[in-house]
Amino acid sequence: MSSTRSATSEREARMALSCAMDGGDPAVVDLVTERGAMGAWAAIKGAALGTAAAERAERVSLELAERMAREAGVRFIVPGDDEWPGGLSDLQHAGAIQRRGGEPVGLWLRGPGHLRQLMERSVAIVGSRAATAYGNGVASDLAADLVAQGVTVVSGGAFGIDAAAHRGALTAGGPTVCVVANGVDVSYPPAHTGMFEALAQQHLLVSELPPGSHPTRVRFLARNRLIAAMAQGTIVVEAALRSGARNTAGWALGCGRPLMAVPGPIYSRASTAPHLMIRSGQAMLVASAADVLELVSGMGQSTLPLSHGPERATDQLHPDQLAVYEAISARRRSSAGDIALAAGVSVPICLGALSSLEAVGLVTGDDRGWLALPAGVRP
Amino acid sequence: MSSTRSATSEREARMALSCAMDGGDPAVVDLVTERGAMGAWAAIKGAALGTAAAERAERVSLELAERMAREAGVRFIVPGDDEWPGGLSDLQHAGAIQRRGGEPVGLWLRGPGHLRQLMERSVAIVGSRAATAYGNGVASDLAADLVAQGVTVVSGGAFGIDAAAHRGALTAGGPTVCVVANGVDVSYPPAHTGMFEALAQQHLLVSELPPGSHPTRVRFLARNRLIAAMAQGTIVVEAALRSGARNTAGWALGCGRPLMAVPGPIYSRASTAPHLMIRSGQAMLVASAADVLELVSGMGQSTLPLSHGPERATDQLHPDQLAVYEAISARRRSSAGDIALAAGVSVPICLGALSSLEAVGLVTGDDRGWLALPAGVRP
Repeated sequence: MSSTRSATSEREARMALSCAMDGGDPAVVDLVTERGAMGAWAAIKGAALGTAAAERAERVSLELAERMAREAGVRFIVPGDDEWPGGLSDLQHAGAIQRRGGEPVGLWLRGPGHLRQLMERSVAIVGSRAATAYGNGVASDLAADLVAQGVTVVSGGAFGIDAAAHRGALTAGGPTVCVVANGVDVSYPPAHTGMFEALAQQHLLVSELPPGSHPTRVRFLARNRLIAAMAQGTIVVEAALRSGARNTAGWALGCGRPLMAVPGPIYSRASTAPHLMIRSGQAMLVASAADVLELVSGMGQSTLPLSHGPERATDQLHPDQLAVYEAISARRRSSAGDIALAAGVSVPICLGALSSLEAVGLVTGDDRGWLALPAGVRP
Repeated sequence: MSSTRSATSEREARMALSCAMDGGDPAVVDLVTERGAMGAWAAIKGAALGTAAAERAERVSLELAERMAREAGVRFIVPGDDEWPGGLSDLQHAGAIQRRGGEPVGLWLRGPGHLRQLMERSVAIVGSRAATAYGNGVASDLAADLVAQGVTVVSGGAFGIDAAAHRGALTAGGPTVCVVANGVDVSYPPAHTGMFEALAQQHLLVSELPPGSHPTRVRFLARNRLIAAMAQGTIVVEAALRSGARNTAGWALGCGRPLMAVPGPIYSRASTAPHLMIRSGQAMLVASAADVLELVSGMGQSTLPLSHGPERATDQLHPDQLAVYEAISARRRSSAGDIALAAGVSVPICLGALSSLEAVGLVTGDDRGWLALPAGVRP
C-alpha cells in the first residue's frame, strides 16, 4: 500500500513518522528537533536517512492508519495537545545518556482515561515476567493501595508483575494505564486479551506505535522509556539481573524520577536485582504504599493515612516515633537519653519524636523526665 | 561477704570495679578516666558516688571473684593486655552520644579463643529473639558463609537470631564469639546451656560482668555496645521496631562501624526494622556473605570468592558485570551504548564492566563493537 495522501500538517507528519519508524530512533528525533515534523517527514521520504527508511516511509498510508484507529476507538495525540503528559519532555535529556530515546512524535490512546490528568499522580510498577507468587502479591497489593490513594498505576502488559499490578488496580477500582510495545488494538500476550479489554473499557491503553503494530525487542526497550518518563516514579518489584525492568529503571533515573525497589527474601533470585539497586544507592527501598507516597514528590501531601481496620492513636506514627513511644514507661519518668537508648535511636531523633508525641498527647514531659500516656487517651 | 583484700594494682582495681558496677555506668567511666582505676575504686569506696555505691563496693570480694573465675576456667583481661580488642576504645566517643557507654573496665573470658585475634576479622550478627524461620535460616547461613571466609561471628546468647548465628558458625567449624549480659559461667537462657558449653570448649564467651552475675535489662543494653564495638561491622537480620538489635545498631553507628541489614518479605513484621534502617540510610542492604565482605573494610581483600559447586568463569562476576556480559551477543557486534541499554546499566558502568570482562577474556572489542566469548573459554 503506497502513501496516497501526503502529510499536510505537523500532526499528520507526526502520525506518518509514528507509522514509519520505531520509537526512540535517534536519527528521527534529531531530524524532528532540527526541521519540525513536516520537515523531518519530507527529509525521510527524500532518503535523507537512507533508501531503506525512504522505502518504508513510502509504504505508510495515513488513510489506513486513521481508519484502523477509528474502528478500534483509538485517538492520536501530539505534544501540545491537552492530553499530552508533561513528563515525556524529560526524554530529550535522558536520550543523551541511553542513546536510543527522545520524546515520542505522538501517542496512540485507547480508553476513556485522560492521559495527562492520570499521570499527574502516577507511579509505575514494573518487574519480571517470571515473577514469584510473592512478587505478584506485592505488585497487586501495592497497586491496590496506591489507587486507593488516588494514584494512577502505570505498567506494561506482560505476564508477571505488569499484569499483577493492573489486576490489583482494577480490583480496587483503578485508575491504571497500560503502555504497550504494539498497537493499542493488538493483544499481546494474547492471554491478556480480557485484561486489555477491561483496561480499554475503564482506563487507558497507550502506545507510540500505530494500530495493528506488533511488538519487537527494540519496541519493548523503547516502550520502557515511556513508562519511566510518564510516571512520577518507578517501582521495581522483582527483576532478573538482565531484564526489561532494569532497563525501565535506567530510564527513570535518566529522567530524574525516583527509582524504588521492593525487597524480598535473599534466597529469591527474583529479588536479586531489586536488592542490588537498593545496595548500590540507585533505588530506595519501599515496603508499602506509604513508603512510595513519601518518596514521590508532592504525593504524600494530600493523602489520607493508609490504615486498615479500626484506627489507634499510634497508627499514624512514624516507625521511629513508635519505637520511642514504646520505649517510654507509663509509670516511671525516663530521661530522653535513656529513652533513646532503649528505642535504639539517636538522641536528636528521640528528642524530635518526643516533641511530636507530646504534640499529639501520647507523652507528657517535664524537667523530671518523660511519661507515656495511653494511646487513644488525648488530654 | 566483705572486701577482705584491697585492690593493690590497676588490674585488681578494674576487677573490683567490674564486680561492683554495671557496665557502662558513665559516673564510673568518668572517674576511671580522671583518676585511674585505683583512684576511681578508692573514690567509690569513699562514697564519692553516694552511699549506695559505697555499700555495694564494700561487699565486693576479690577472693571470691577470683576463685569463681578459676573454678570456671575464666580469665580477666584489661586494656593493654595482648587479648584486649582495639575496637572497644571507640566506645569512649560513642558513649557521649548514647549517654551510657564507655570502654569496659575489664572483660571476663571463657574459652580457648584469643579475643583480639578473633576480632581482627569479625562481624556481629544480631536480631530478634522472636525471629521467623526465614530469619533464623539467614542468620545461620550468613554465619556459616562468613566463618568459611575466616571471619569471626559475634553475637549474644539469646533465642532466635543470636543462637541461629552461633549454630551456623559452629556447624561450619567456627570461630564464633558469644558476648553475654551475665557471668560467662552462667547459662542464660538455660535452654542454651549446650550451646554455651560448645562455645566455651571451642571458641569464646565474653562478658564485662564477673562470674556468677545474672542478666538485667540494663546489662543487656550495656552488653550490646560491646558487640557493636568489638566487631568490625554489625548485621541486623530481623528485628522489631523496638528491640535490642536496634540498640546494638545504634552503638555500631556511634562507633563508626558499618551497619548492615538483611531484607525480607515486606509482609513480615520481623523485617520491618531492617527495611526501615536501609530506607533511612542507616544500614546498607546485605543479601550474602559476599555483600558483607565488600562492606567491612579490608575484609574483602584476602578472601576467596564464595562459590559452591563447580565454578564457571562468570561465577566471580559482580552482578553489573554479569548483566553486561549477558547483554552482549556472541554473534553480532554491539556498541557499548546498546549493551548498556539492554543490560539496564548506565554507560559509564557498562564501559567499566566491558573493560573488566575483556581483562578476563569474556568479551572482545574493537572499533566495530563488542562480542561475547563463551564463559570458560579464555583466549
